[in-house]
Formats: sequence, C-alpha cells, structure tokens
Amino acid sequence: MDYGYEQGRCLMDEITCIEAVLHDISEYVVDRYSQRDTLTVSTKASPTDFLTEVDIAVQRRIVEHLSAAYPSDILIAEESGLDSFKGSLPPRCWMIDPIDGTQNFLRGLFPEFGVSIGFLVDGKPVAGGVLFPVSQDLFLSECGSGAFRNGKRMKVSQVDRLQEARVDIDFGALSYRHEYRKHAQGLLEVVGQVRSYGCSVMGFFCQVADGQQDAYIPFNVKPWDVAAGILLVEEAGGGKVTAFNGDSVNPFLSERIGIVSNAPLHSKCVELLGWM
Amino acid sequence: MDYGYEQGRCLMDEITCIEAVLHDISEYVVDRYSQRDTLTVSTKASPTDFLTEVDIAVQRRIVEHLSAAYPSDILIAEESGLDSFKGSLPPRCWMIDPIDGTQNFLRGLFPEFGVSIGFLVDGKPVAGGVLFPVSQDLFLSECGSGAFRNGKRMKVSQVDRLQEARVDIDFGALSYRHEYRKHAQGLLEVVGQVRSYGCSVMGFFCQVADGQQDAYIPFNVKPWDVAAGILLVEEAGGGKVTAFNGDSVNPFLSERIGIVSNAPLHSKCVELLGWM
Repeated sequence: MDYGYEQGRCLMDEITCIEAVLHDISEYVVDRYSQRDTLTVSTKASPTDFLTEVDIAVQRRIVEHLSAAYPSDILIAEESGLDSFKGSLPPRCWMIDPIDGTQNFLRGLFPEFGVSIGFLVDGKPVAGGVLFPVSQDLFLSECGSGAFRNGKRMKVSQVDRLQEARVDIDFGALSYRHEYRKHAQGLLEVVGQVRSYGCSVMGFFCQVADGQQDAYIPFNVKPWDVAAGILLVEEAGGGKVTAFNGDSVNPFLSERIGIVSNAPLHSKCVELLGWM
Repeated sequence: MDYGYEQGRCLMDEITCIEAVLHDISEYVVDRYSQRDTLTVSTKASPTDFLTEVDIAVQRRIVEHLSAAYPSDILIAEESGLDSFKGSLPPRCWMIDPIDGTQNFLRGLFPEFGVSIGFLVDGKPVAGGVLFPVSQDLFLSECGSGAFRNGKRMKVSQVDRLQEARVDIDFGALSYRHEYRKHAQGLLEVVGQVRSYGCSVMGFFCQVADGQQDAYIPFNVKPWDVAAGILLVEEAGGGKVTAFNGDSVNPFLSERIGIVSNAPLHSKCVELLGWM
C-alpha cells in the first residue's frame, strides 16, 4: 500500500515512524473488524465503555515499535490506564489511542473508528497520524509542514457565518450534560447544521482539518484523543483548538478542550459558549 | 456477490426484484464514489442540498428496472420532483431514494449514504430494501416475515430506560429548529447518549432496526426517506414508528414523523416530546 505522503518534503524520523506503524497494524485491524463477532470484549468505566482484545493488541504492537525506535521516550496510551501526567512536561513523549471508537468498531453500521498516534516535544505536538483502517484514510502532519489526507494537502473551510456552518456538538454524558448544555444553548440557536457523532473524536478533528465540518465542540476529551488531532487542525491552513474561553491548550490540558474550528468561526464560538 | 437473504422463505416477487435492483446498481455507485472529485454537481432547494449525476443515473436505472417489471405501478422518487401525493392512495406504489446522504457521498469522511426502495400496497409498506454500497450492507424486509441485514435477522434493542438509551435527535434546519428544540428539550435532559447524524435518515432507521441505536427522532422527512425504513423497523421484532403524539403514520404522512423506536421506549418519548 502506498499512503502517498507528499514527496520531496523534509521528513522528521518521527513522522516516517508514525506512518510505518500505522501501515503495520492496518491489515490486522481490518481483519479483526471483519471477524468482530468472535472478539473477547470487556467494559471499563461504564457499561458502554468497551475494551476489546484488538485495542490491547494494537496498543502492544504500537508500543513495541515505538519503544524499539525511541527507547528513552515516554509513552502514554489509552489502554495503559494512565490519563494524566504530573510534574514537568517530558521533553519527548508519544500519545497513542489504539482504537478510537471501540463501540463503533464493535457495533457500528459504519467504520467510524481510527488509530491515533501523536508525538510531542516539551508538551507540544510536533508529529501526528490518524488512520481509519477500513476506508484506508490516512491523516498525517508534522509541525510547520502542513497536514495531509492520503498525500493531499488539507485546508480548513473558510465558512465565517455560523448560520452556514456545520458544527459537531458533543452532548456528552448525563452527569455533566445539563451544565454543558447551558453553555451550548446559544450555539444551538444559530448554527446552520448541528451534528453529534459522539465518540468519534478523531474523526471530527479530521473532518475540521479537511474542511468537511467547520467546527467541533468536544467535552471531556483525553490526551490521546487530541494529541494528533490538534496538530492536524492547526497545520491545515491555520485551524484553531483552544479552551472554551479561547485560552491556548495542549494535550496535557485536554480537560479544558474546548473549541476546534476553522479559525474564522472561532471568536464567535468563544463568545456564544460563554465559558469565560 | 451473495447478499445472503435468508433461505427457505416464501418470497414475494417484489422483494426479489428490490434485491436484484440494489445488486444491479451497487458496482456503479461504488465506482462513481471512488471518482467523486470528477462529478457534475448542482444544488436544489438550499446551498447544502446537492444533486449529482449519480443520483440521476441511479434513479433512472431503478425506474427503468421497476417500470419494466411492473408497468402499471406508480413510482415516486426523490429526484423526480414529486414529494406529495393528492387523492386516494394508489393500490401499488414504489418509493425510491437513489442516494440518501448526497452530501456525505460528496464530502464525507465515512460512506454514510444508502440507496432505498420501498414498495407499498394501499399506502402501506410491504417490501423494502436499503443498500449501503461502499460497505455492502444490505437491509431487506417484507411484511410479516421479519427484517434482515445481510441475511441475518434483525431485532430492535430491549433498552427500556432513557438514561441508558442511545438516541439520534435530528436538530434540522434553522427555520424550524427553535420550535423543534422546545419539544426536544425534555429528551435532551434524560437520554444517556445523544447523537445527531443529520442527513443519514436511512442509516438511522437501519440502526434502530438492527439494535445499534434505541430511538431516532427525525423531523421533516420525505416519503422516500421512510418507505423502506418504516417496514425495516416494524419488522425487526416490533419496533415502532409514529407521529410525535403517538398516532400511526405511513410514508404518505411523512411530514408527521416523528418517533422511531425500539418500542419499550416509545411511550416515554411521546410523553417527553410533548407534541400532543
């Protein structure tokens, strides 16, 4: 398979490594997806928070590959149980989501699940990749070089009126929905098309980066959900990812995210979400 | 390709015909999808209401096939411009949506678009099929015989508490969203997981039929959006499709739809939507 990452660019070792790892696990994931009825499945925090043997196996394979290539780097991965990081930011760190959208993997009508790998230096994402294995859609970016979908440069949309915008609003869990909805109310009244795809966080970072959606308002995301996504959006012609009040964020501050947008809509979203 | 519709059942001619037509157009749609950047596209009622040459070509092919097989039957199709029917209900009638989800066909990250064909006798759906060409997911049903996904009998979920339910709420267009949201408010406060996939009406009828989702609250659907879907849900172990106030509906009364559910949740949805 040729993922067609653009020729002639100055590639970091890390982005080449990300592409190789995603390539490496692709066939396995597609094969297991086709036999998903036979998988061993358990649940995590809630009855709809699933864990399959595929999450574990994919994570193990990615961790093995990255540990061999960069033995001193810190690895943070969804299924390792570590979801926050105390102390000073590590100089080199990887964030891995082996299957984002496990519920969709198991039950979904459509293959909305992805594998995400982000590489951070001093807390800032500098290389990232997301692969949707069934459709073979590959999203790659490195800091300063743009963001690419299957080798084609991506650009966020230029929609600047909320009345014409397509915005994904994550309504989240019941435990915090009431508070969240109070803030989202203003946006719900003026956005042209409201979508809510729920668990496919990476998908909707990718949709904003590729201009298919104009903004995404997530809540309660985890570092591995956003490490590659933030870079993809920011490198796709200047998309923005901030806290609800417009403050800058990074994957280590994922609990404050926030607003993901094409940039022209960003200040309007900050104003309407009223999270000042 | 073998769609695997269950062996040994007493098949009506019409369901066999639906399966054959969907089979017939499948390869063409997948081929055009893979070359979607080269398509001729125009818009219909609004700037996001797209029409492609594929919608037209698929509809023509389906109409030709059905007209040859049943020359006296009435055909109602999305791209023919006819969206309502005056006078008494026709004894035999077909409703066709050549591509449900044209925007997704053109721009979507995931192939959430389907081809839908419903056959009605005296206004009541008696046979229906929906094909998602890219994933080759085929949904078929005939009245009294159950509903099947790729040959496997479907059954709606048994979730009976809204707190545990996954419900798709269509927020619709700005012109009627404010009124609609007033009614949806109560549901938004108590549903476990809120989703809003927007234009994929057929997909979410199919998701309720196959138990992947527990209810779907559409608004402003058209006859060809629902003709096959109603049958699929009702035949999948007794799912329900009604008006917001619980009254019975059929595709000719699509403007009143409504509530699509697994049945155990239905009366709670009627109560909370408050559309009495």
